[in-house]
Amino acid sequence: MSFLHGIAASSGIAMAKAYRLVEPDLSFAKITIENADSEVERFEAAVAKSKSELEVIRDHAREKLGADKAAIFEAHLLVLSDPELLTPIKDRVKSDKVNSEFALKETADMFISMFEAMDNEYMRERAADIRDVTKRVLSHLLGVKLNDPSMISEEVIVVAEDLTPSDTAQLNRQFVKGFTTDIGGRTSHSAIMARSLEIPAVVGTKTATKDIENGDFIIVDGLKGQVHINPTQELLEQYKKENEAYEAQKAEWAKLKNEKSYSADGHQVELVANIGTPNDLAGVKSNGGEGVGLYRTEFLYMGRDQLPTEEEQFESYKAVLEGLEGKPVVVRTLDIGGDKELPYLSLPKEMNPFLGYRAIRLCLERQDIFRTQLRALLRASTYGNLKIMFPMIATIAEFRQAKAILDEEKEKLLKEGVAISETIEVGIMVEIPSTAVLADQFAKEVDFFSIGTNDLIQYTLAADRMNERVSYLYQPYNPSILRLVKMVIDASHKEGKWTGMCGEMAGDETAIPILLGLGLDEFSMSATSILKARSLIRKLSRADMEKMAEKALQMSTTEEVIELVKEATNTK
Amino acid sequence: MSFLHGIAASSGIAMAKAYRLVEPDLSFAKITIENADSEVERFEAAVAKSKSELEVIRDHAREKLGADKAAIFEAHLLVLSDPELLTPIKDRVKSDKVNSEFALKETADMFISMFEAMDNEYMRERAADIRDVTKRVLSHLLGVKLNDPSMISEEVIVVAEDLTPSDTAQLNRQFVKGFTTDIGGRTSHSAIMARSLEIPAVVGTKTATKDIENGDFIIVDGLKGQVHINPTQELLEQYKKENEAYEAQKAEWAKLKNEKSYSADGHQVELVANIGTPNDLAGVKSNGGEGVGLYRTEFLYMGRDQLPTEEEQFESYKAVLEGLEGKPVVVRTLDIGGDKELPYLSLPKEMNPFLGYRAIRLCLERQDIFRTQLRALLRASTYGNLKIMFPMIATIAEFRQAKAILDEEKEKLLKEGVAISETIEVGIMVEIPSTAVLADQFAKEVDFFSIGTNDLIQYTLAADRMNERVSYLYQPYNPSILRLVKMVIDASHKEGKWTGMCGEMAGDETAIPILLGLGLDEFSMSATSILKARSLIRKLSRADMEKMAEKALQMSTTEEVIELVKEATNTK
Repeated sequence: MSFLHGIAASSGIAMAKAYRLVEPDLSFAKITIENADSEVERFEAAVAKSKSELEVIRDHAREKLGADKAAIFEAHLLVLSDPELLTPIKDRVKSDKVNSEFALKETADMFISMFEAMDNEYMRERAADIRDVTKRVLSHLLGVKLNDPSMISEEVIVVAEDLTPSDTAQLNRQFVKGFTTDIGGRTSHSAIMARSLEIPAVVGTKTATKDIENGDFIIVDGLKGQVHINPTQELLEQYKKENEAYEAQKAEWAKLKNEKSYSADGHQVELVANIGTPNDLAGVKSNGGEGVGLYRTEFLYMGRDQLPTEEEQFESYKAVLEGLEGKPVVVRTLDIGGDKELPYLSLPKEMNPFLGYRAIRLCLERQDIFRTQLRALLRASTYGNLKIMFPMIATIAEFRQAKAILDEEKEKLLKEGVAISETIEVGIMVEIPSTAVLADQFAKEVDFFSIGTNDLIQYTLAADRMNERVSYLYQPYNPSILRLVKMVIDASHKEGKWTGMCGEMAGDETAIPILLGLGLDEFSMSATSILKARSLIRKLSRADMEKMAEKALQMSTTEEVIELVKEATNTK
Repeated sequence: MSFLHGIAASSGIAMAKAYRLVEPDLSFAKITIENADSEVERFEAAVAKSKSELEVIRDHAREKLGADKAAIFEAHLLVLSDPELLTPIKDRVKSDKVNSEFALKETADMFISMFEAMDNEYMRERAADIRDVTKRVLSHLLGVKLNDPSMISEEVIVVAEDLTPSDTAQLNRQFVKGFTTDIGGRTSHSAIMARSLEIPAVVGTKTATKDIENGDFIIVDGLKGQVHINPTQELLEQYKKENEAYEAQKAEWAKLKNEKSYSADGHQVELVANIGTPNDLAGVKSNGGEGVGLYRTEFLYMGRDQLPTEEEQFESYKAVLEGLEGKPVVVRTLDIGGDKELPYLSLPKEMNPFLGYRAIRLCLERQDIFRTQLRALLRASTYGNLKIMFPMIATIAEFRQAKAILDEEKEKLLKEGVAISETIEVGIMVEIPSTAVLADQFAKEVDFFSIGTNDLIQYTLAADRMNERVSYLYQPYNPSILRLVKMVIDASHKEGKWTGMCGEMAGDETAIPILLGLGLDEFSMSATSILKARSLIRKLSRADMEKMAEKALQMSTTEEVIELVKEATNTK
C-alpha cells in the first residue's frame, strides 16, 4: 500500500477501483497535402462531429448538472462556430497545403497563447475552451477516441491529472464514487464540481496519475485530504467504520432539514444559501436553506455576447422569488469588473483590478445597465420576499446615489401602473474596511448589512487571496477582522437593523462559534454546508460563545483565536 | 489677453516672457546606403556625442539637483551602453543597407512598444528612457539641435507639452521663473520637479503650447492653477500685489526656521521631513525640519544592476544620521515590490501588485537582503538618533518575526565587537487597515507608529489611487480614515508610545487641524511644506481642534468634514 497527501476538496470518503482518465495520444506529423479542398472538407466533417458530440454532452450536463454547468459546453459550441478561429485554419490549409491537424494546432495555439497572456481571468478561460475544443476536433481528425467517462459502468474512483469541465460533465454520478487529481486547489474547477456533485475528492496530490494504476483499489478521504492506494485490510475496515459514522452523521444532519436554527440556549439565527442561478434552488431546498442570503446575478450577464434584457432578468428574478415561496431572497446587484469581466463591456485594463472599477462603481457610471437591473428586480418584487443589496459600497455618498436611482426607477414604474412590493429591504455588502469602520453611520440609512468576508479580509490585510505568495495573510480569524465584524453587527442592532454574512467564513466551523457569539443574525453559505452548520449551532450556547467572542476580540493573532475556539467548543 | 486653467502643481506666482520648449523636427527619410561600415561609424559617432553630452547634463544635474535626479541620466547613459539595443541597430544597418536614423527608430520603437505594453511602472519608465535617448542620438545624426534650456539667459516661463527629465535638469533656476505644460498631473514628473526646484508651475493646461507664442508675457499662478497670457495692466498690478503678499508670507514663514512647533495654546508637535537620499538633507535644514520622519531607502536599491552592499548602505545611513546632528531619523526598511520593482530581483508578475508580495513580506522571505540592510543600519546607529521602521506590517506575527531578525543581527554584531546604539527605537508603518484596527495590541510591542496614509487610504477604501476611474474614492478626510488614525494615536498614547504620519496627508492644510486635534505627535512631509505647516499650527488652538476632531469622527461624509474644518479654522 502507499499513501498520497493532497487538498481536501470535497468531503466524504470513497472506496473503489481506480479509473485513470488520462489524455489519449493526439500527436501527428505535419504533412503536405495535394487536394486542399478535400482536406478542408475533412476538417469540416471533424468539426461537425465534434459539434454533435458536444450537443449531447451539453444536454446531458443540463439535465444532470443544471444550466450553468451546461453553459461551459455552450461556450465550446460557440468556439466551434466562430469564423475568427475556423477561417484562418481553412485558409492555412489552402495557402500552405498542410494537413488540417497541423493548421488547427498552429492556429489554436496562437489564439491560446494570446488569450493566456492576457491579464484577465475571462480571457484565460477562453484559452481553456479553445484547448478543450481543439482536442476534440483533433480526436476526430485522428480517429482517436477521447476518454469517455460517461461509459463507465462500475463503481470507480477517477484518477486524472486535472479534470476539464467536459470530463466532469460526463461523469456518471451513479458510478463515480470519488476522484483525485495531480493539480488544482480548493477553488479549482475540479474541486468546485466535486462539491456541487457531492462526490468526495482530493486534489493537488501532485503524483496520483503516476502512482496509481488502473484497477488499484483506492480510498479517497475527502475529509483529511488523503488517498490510500491498495490499503491494508485493517485500514480498509477502519475506513469503513469512519464512513459509516460519516454517513450516520449526514443522516442526523438530514433530520434538521425542516428545523429552524436555534443555539443550545434558544437563540435563533437564519441559515441561508448563496446561489448563482434559479437552478440552484433545488439544492437550497434539499439542504434545508431558510432562504437565499446572496443571489449573485453575474451569471445572468456571463457566457453571452450582449447585456441581458430587462425581460430576461425579470424572468430569472421571478423564478427565484417564486421558487423560495416567500422566504427571504437577497439579490446582489451586478458585481462585475475586478477579476470578473464581460466580453461585451470593454472595461479598462487596470493595474490593480481588485482596487479598481467594479461593482457599484461601474453601475453608478453605467446607469443604463444598473437601471435595467433595478427595474427587473422591482417588477419581480411582488413574487416573493425580495431584498436588494448593493456590492462594494465604500462611502455613504455611493449608497445614497444608488438608493436614489432605485427610488427613481420605482417612481417611474409606479407611474406606469406596475405593482411593486412595499416591503423591499435595501441593504449593502460590507466588504470594504471603510464601510465596516463607519457602520454606525451607514446603519442609519440602510435596512441591513451583509458582510462579504472574502473581499473584506483581502482589503483589511492588503493581500490578494489569489496570490500564493501572500495567501498566508488571508486570515479570517485575525482579531482585526473579528473587530470589524463586531462593529458592523453592533451598529446594525443599535438601529434595529440586521447583519448577515455571505463570505466563505459564514459556513466555516471555526468561525461559526465566534459569529454566533458576536451576534450575527444571518449566515449565508453553500447550500451543502447548511445542515452541518445547523447541527453545530444547536450544540453551542450563545451565552458561552458571547463570552468567548469577547476574549477573541482582545487576542493579538489568528493562532490564538483558533486555539481559543478549540478550547471553547471542546468543553461542550 | 487670454486665460488657461490647469492643475496647480507647484505654488507661487511667476511673471515673465514665454519660452517655448517644443520638439525640434527630427523627421527623416528611409535611405538605402552603400557603405554599411561607414554608416555604422556615423551611428557610433552620434552615440559617442550623445554620451558626452549626457555626461555633462548628468554632472550638471548632480551638482544643481542632487544625485537622485542625476540618476535619470545615469539610466540614459546605461541605455546608450546597452548592446541589446545597439547591436540590433548596427546589424540592421548592415543587413538591410538602411540609414542609421531608420535602423535606430525602428529598433527603438520596437523596444518602446514592448516596454510600454508591460503592466509595470518600472518598465514603462525604461520605455521613456529609450525614447529620450533615441531623440538625442537622432538629433546628432540629423545635425539638428535639441532644445537647450540651459542656454536661456533672461527671465522666462517655460511652455512645453510636457517636460522630460533631461529638459528639467537643464533648466537654469536663475532664469526659469515658472513653467506650464499641456499634459501631466500633480504627481507627474514635471510637477514633482517643479516643487523640488520651488518654481511655480501649472500643468495639464491641455493647450498651453498652442495658445502661447514665444515672447508672450505670461503669469503662472501656481496657487490657483491659472495661466494668464498677455494680461491687462490691471491684472498684472493685482498679481504683483498678490505676489508681494505671497513673498511676504514666505518671509514670515522663513522666520520660523529655527523655531519649535507649538500650537497657539502651547501644545508641541514635531515637524519632520520625508527624504530619499542624503542629498535631500540640505532641504531639510533650510526648511527648518526637526528631523526626518521617513527616509525611503529604496533609492539605494534603484538605478543599478545589483543589490547595494552592506558597506554602501552603511555609508548612506551614516551620512544621513551625521548630517542630522542628533535629530531623529526614522529609516524605513526596504519597501520594494508592488509598483516599485528592481531589475535585478526577478519578482513574480502579479494580478494585483498593491495587494501583493512587497515590502516586509518580501524581506521576511528574502532575509539575505533584509539582514544586510539591518546590519548596515545597526552599524550606522552610533552616528546619530536612529529609529528603524518596518513597512507594510499587516499582522503582529510579521512584526515579531522582523524584530527577532533585527535582534539576531544585533547580537551577532555585538559579538563581533561592533558598537551599536542602545536607544534605537523600532516601530512600524501603519498603512494596512488590520494594523490600525489592532493598534492597541501592536502598541504593546512596538516603540512607535508612523501612519502611511497613501496606502492606508487606498486599502481602506479599496481604491487604487493611481487608477483615474476610482480616484474619487481616495478620500483622506473620509471619517473612516480619521477613525483609524484616532485608533492608532490613542493606542500608542495609552502605552506611552508616539505616533507620526508620513503620508501626503501630514502636510495637508485641511488635514493638519484635524490631526492636531486627534493628538498626532509627529508630522512628516516634503521639506518645502514644513514652514507653512509650522505657521498654520501656531495659529491653531489644540483644545479647539480637539473638539472639532471629535465632531469630525461623527460625520458621515468627506464633504461634511471639509466643511467642518473650514468653519473651525475661519473663525480663528
